[in-house]
Amino acid sequence: MNIALSALGRRTAPPPISWLMQTALARPKLISLAAGFTDNETLPVGFSRQLLNEILRTPKTGRPALQYGTTTGDEKLRQLTAAHLQKLDGGPDRAHAPERILITGGSQQLLYLTLEALCDEGDLVLVEDPTYFVFLSILQSRGLRARGVKLERDGIDLAQLEKILTQLKQSGQLRRLKALYLVTYFQNPTGATTTLAKKRAALTLLKKFERAAGHPIYLIEDAAYRELRFDHDADVPTALTLPGARDRVIYAGTYSKPFATGVRVGFGLLPEPVYTAVLRIKGNHDFGTASLLQQLLTRALATGTYDRQVAKARKNYARKAAVMRRALAEHFPAAVEIWEAGGGLYFWARLPKGISAGVNSKIFQAALKHNVLYVPGELCYADDSARRKPANELRLSFGNASVENIRTGIRRLGAVLKKFL
Amino acid sequence: MNIALSALGRRTAPPPISWLMQTALARPKLISLAAGFTDNETLPVGFSRQLLNEILRTPKTGRPALQYGTTTGDEKLRQLTAAHLQKLDGGPDRAHAPERILITGGSQQLLYLTLEALCDEGDLVLVEDPTYFVFLSILQSRGLRARGVKLERDGIDLAQLEKILTQLKQSGQLRRLKALYLVTYFQNPTGATTTLAKKRAALTLLKKFERAAGHPIYLIEDAAYRELRFDHDADVPTALTLPGARDRVIYAGTYSKPFATGVRVGFGLLPEPVYTAVLRIKGNHDFGTASLLQQLLTRALATGTYDRQVAKARKNYARKAAVMRRALAEHFPAAVEIWEAGGGLYFWARLPKGISAGVNSKIFQAALKHNVLYVPGELCYADDSARRKPANELRLSFGNASVENIRTGIRRLGAVLKKFL
Repeated sequence: MNIALSALGRRTAPPPISWLMQTALARPKLISLAAGFTDNETLPVGFSRQLLNEILRTPKTGRPALQYGTTTGDEKLRQLTAAHLQKLDGGPDRAHAPERILITGGSQQLLYLTLEALCDEGDLVLVEDPTYFVFLSILQSRGLRARGVKLERDGIDLAQLEKILTQLKQSGQLRRLKALYLVTYFQNPTGATTTLAKKRAALTLLKKFERAAGHPIYLIEDAAYRELRFDHDADVPTALTLPGARDRVIYAGTYSKPFATGVRVGFGLLPEPVYTAVLRIKGNHDFGTASLLQQLLTRALATGTYDRQVAKARKNYARKAAVMRRALAEHFPAAVEIWEAGGGLYFWARLPKGISAGVNSKIFQAALKHNVLYVPGELCYADDSARRKPANELRLSFGNASVENIRTGIRRLGAVLKKFL
Repeated sequence: MNIALSALGRRTAPPPISWLMQTALARPKLISLAAGFTDNETLPVGFSRQLLNEILRTPKTGRPALQYGTTTGDEKLRQLTAAHLQKLDGGPDRAHAPERILITGGSQQLLYLTLEALCDEGDLVLVEDPTYFVFLSILQSRGLRARGVKLERDGIDLAQLEKILTQLKQSGQLRRLKALYLVTYFQNPTGATTTLAKKRAALTLLKKFERAAGHPIYLIEDAAYRELRFDHDADVPTALTLPGARDRVIYAGTYSKPFATGVRVGFGLLPEPVYTAVLRIKGNHDFGTASLLQQLLTRALATGTYDRQVAKARKNYARKAAVMRRALAEHFPAAVEIWEAGGGLYFWARLPKGISAGVNSKIFQAALKHNVLYVPGELCYADDSARRKPANELRLSFGNASVENIRTGIRRLGAVLKKFL
C-alpha cells in the first residue's frame, strides 16, 4: 500500500538544524556556537513577571488576554507597532500605517504565509547567497525554486541581480518569479547589513522587469535582527521608506528576537492584495496569534519596558560579540576572512577557497571531536544549479553561548583550523 | 498587469464568520448568539496570574518559558498530555504515548498541518454534514473537495458513509480520498456526540475500502469540545482506544477551549508517517509553539489548577445551557426541533423543511432588525453537489453571551420565528 501523504508531505525534508541540535544533545560537554538561540541570562524574567502581573491584576485587563482576539491582531499593538517602526525609520507617515500591519506568531509565520499567498509549486524566488536556512526549508517543502544572488558585505551584488533577471527574461522564466527575499539587518548567517542604496537599487531593478514578468515582483524584507544592533546610531531605514515601496515591499519584523524568543510575536507590513490573502490564510492556520502574548508585548511597548529590555540585550550582545572578535583575532589563522557583524547573533568565517568546513568535512569532524559545534555555511545556500555551493564557510553564533564558552570554543576551533590550513 | 498571488492566495475566501463579526460590531446593541467565544466571566485570570508568577519567580523556571523550545513541544507537557488522555480514555497504555504527541498552536493549527501533510489539490475529505466551518474554509483554500456524510444525533449515518465509499470506489475516486473528519464531542455546530460504536464502525469501514484506495484513509478525530461536558460521567473514549486505531487515527485536542482561548495550546496525537511530516511542516511554520504558553499549561496541569478551572467552566456552561434550554422551551414554536447538547457551546435548532433561516432569509434579516444574531446553519455545510445545502437550521451559542442576553436573545428570536412559522 502506498502512503497517503501529499506531495508536500512527502517532500518536506528534516531541517538541517535539527540534526545539529541532536548532535549537540548527544554530547553534553559540547560547546555550541551553532544555535540561533538568544542569550539566556538576559531574558526578561523580571520584566515579564511584572507586566503579566499588571495585565492579570483585574478582569478588565486580564480577560482580553485570555480570550480570542481578531486574526489581524490587537488594535493597540498594531498602533504601537506602526509608531515603533515610524520611530526607527522616519520616512513618510503612511509607510507604517496600522491597517497595513498584521500580527503573527513570530516573523517565521509571516514568511510561511507570504510564500503560501504568492507562490505556486515551481515558482521562483531570488534569495541572498547565502541566506536564512529555514526560509530555504520552506521553499524546499513547498516545491519552489530558488536562485541565489551573491551577498556582499553591504548587500547583494546588484550587477548579478540584473544579470539573473535578464537571463530569466530571456528564458521566459520571469513569469514564475514572485519575489526577492533579503535579510537586511545583521543577516543570518553572515551578519551583513544591506545599505539603503542597495535596497533602492534592488527595488528599481525588480520594477524594471515587472512588465516582462506580467505581475508585481515583491521585495520581501526580513528585518528579524534589526533591533539587535550594537550601535544605536547606525540603524538603516527599511525599504518601506523608499518611493514605490508601498505596493511592492513586504516587511517581516519580530518582537521575539529582541524581547524573548519564548514569546512568539512578530508582524508583517504588507501591500494589497497580499495583505488580504495572508490574513485569510492565517485565519485558517490559527484565527490569530495568542492574545496573552500580544497583550504582554502591547504592555511592554506602551510602558517603555520593551525599550529597556532591548537596550539591555543589545549591550550584552555587543559585549559577547567583542569577546568573540578578540578570540577570533587571537586564535584563528590569518588566512581566515572574518565578517564582523555590527549587530545580530552571528560572525561569518570564510576559509581559503577549496578548504571544506562542510557537514562531511574533516574540519567539522575534528571540531566535533574537540567538542565544538558550528553551522557549516553550505547549509545556508539554496539549491541552485547555476553554481556550486561553497563549503568553506562557518556561521559562528555568540547569541546563546557564555563568554567563557565563546572563548574556549573559538580557541578549540582555531586549533583545529590551524591543523588544516 | 496580473496579480502575483498563488492559486491558493487567489482562491482563499474570507471566512463567513468575519462577516458575522463585522455585523455584530456595527450594531453595538446586538445580542450575539453567534460567536464561538468562550465565557468571559469564567476565564482563569487569577489562576493564570498565580501560575505565571510561579513560573517567572526564578530564572531557573522563568528562562525556559522565554526561550525557544523544540518543534515537538515541551517534554513535560507531552508527558502530562499523554497522562491526561490516558485518564480520560482508559484503554491501551500505548495509545497515548508522549512520543506520538505534538504540541501545536491550538488544535486549529494541527488541522491545517494535517491537511497540508495529507492532501494534494483535488483530493477528497469526508466530513460531517454539517461540520465545523473553519475546517471547510481550509478545504476551500487548499483546493480540496468535500463530501458530506449526514450527521445524526449520535454520529454520522453509517449506511450513508458506506454508500459514499462504494460510489467513490466505483467511480475511481477512492484513490483521492485521504480522510474522514469527525468532530466527535459536542460537535460544532450541532452539539452532537459520536458514540464509540459509531467510531468503531467508521474506522472499520475506512479500513475495508483502503485496498481499493491504495493507501491509508485516516480518521481525523477533532475533540476540541470534549472537556466542556456538563456531566462528568458521560465521557466517551476516543477512537484512539479502538483496535487498529494506532496507525489510522489522528487525534486533535486542545487546552485553549477548556482553559483559556487566549492561551493557544493544542495538541495532536498522530501515527507515522503523518507525525513526522506534520512535525517538519510545523518547523517551517513556526519552529514550535510559544514556550510561555506551554509552560503555563504545563504548570496548570501539574498543579491541578487546570482541572479546577475546567470544573468551574463546565459548571458555568451547564448553567448557561440550562438557561438557553428553558428559554427555548418557553419562546420557540413547537415546530422547531432542538438538538440539546450535553456539553460544548452550542444548541442546534431545525425549522420545518422549506423554511429558510439562511444568510439571505427574511428570518435572518428580521432577527438582525430585532438585534439578535445567530449562525445560519447553511454556513456549516460543505460544497457538495450530491445534495442541496439545508438552510432551515440555526446554531445558537450560549458560550459567550450573558445569562440575561441568552434569555432576551432567545425570546426575541422566538418572536421572529413565530411570525414566520
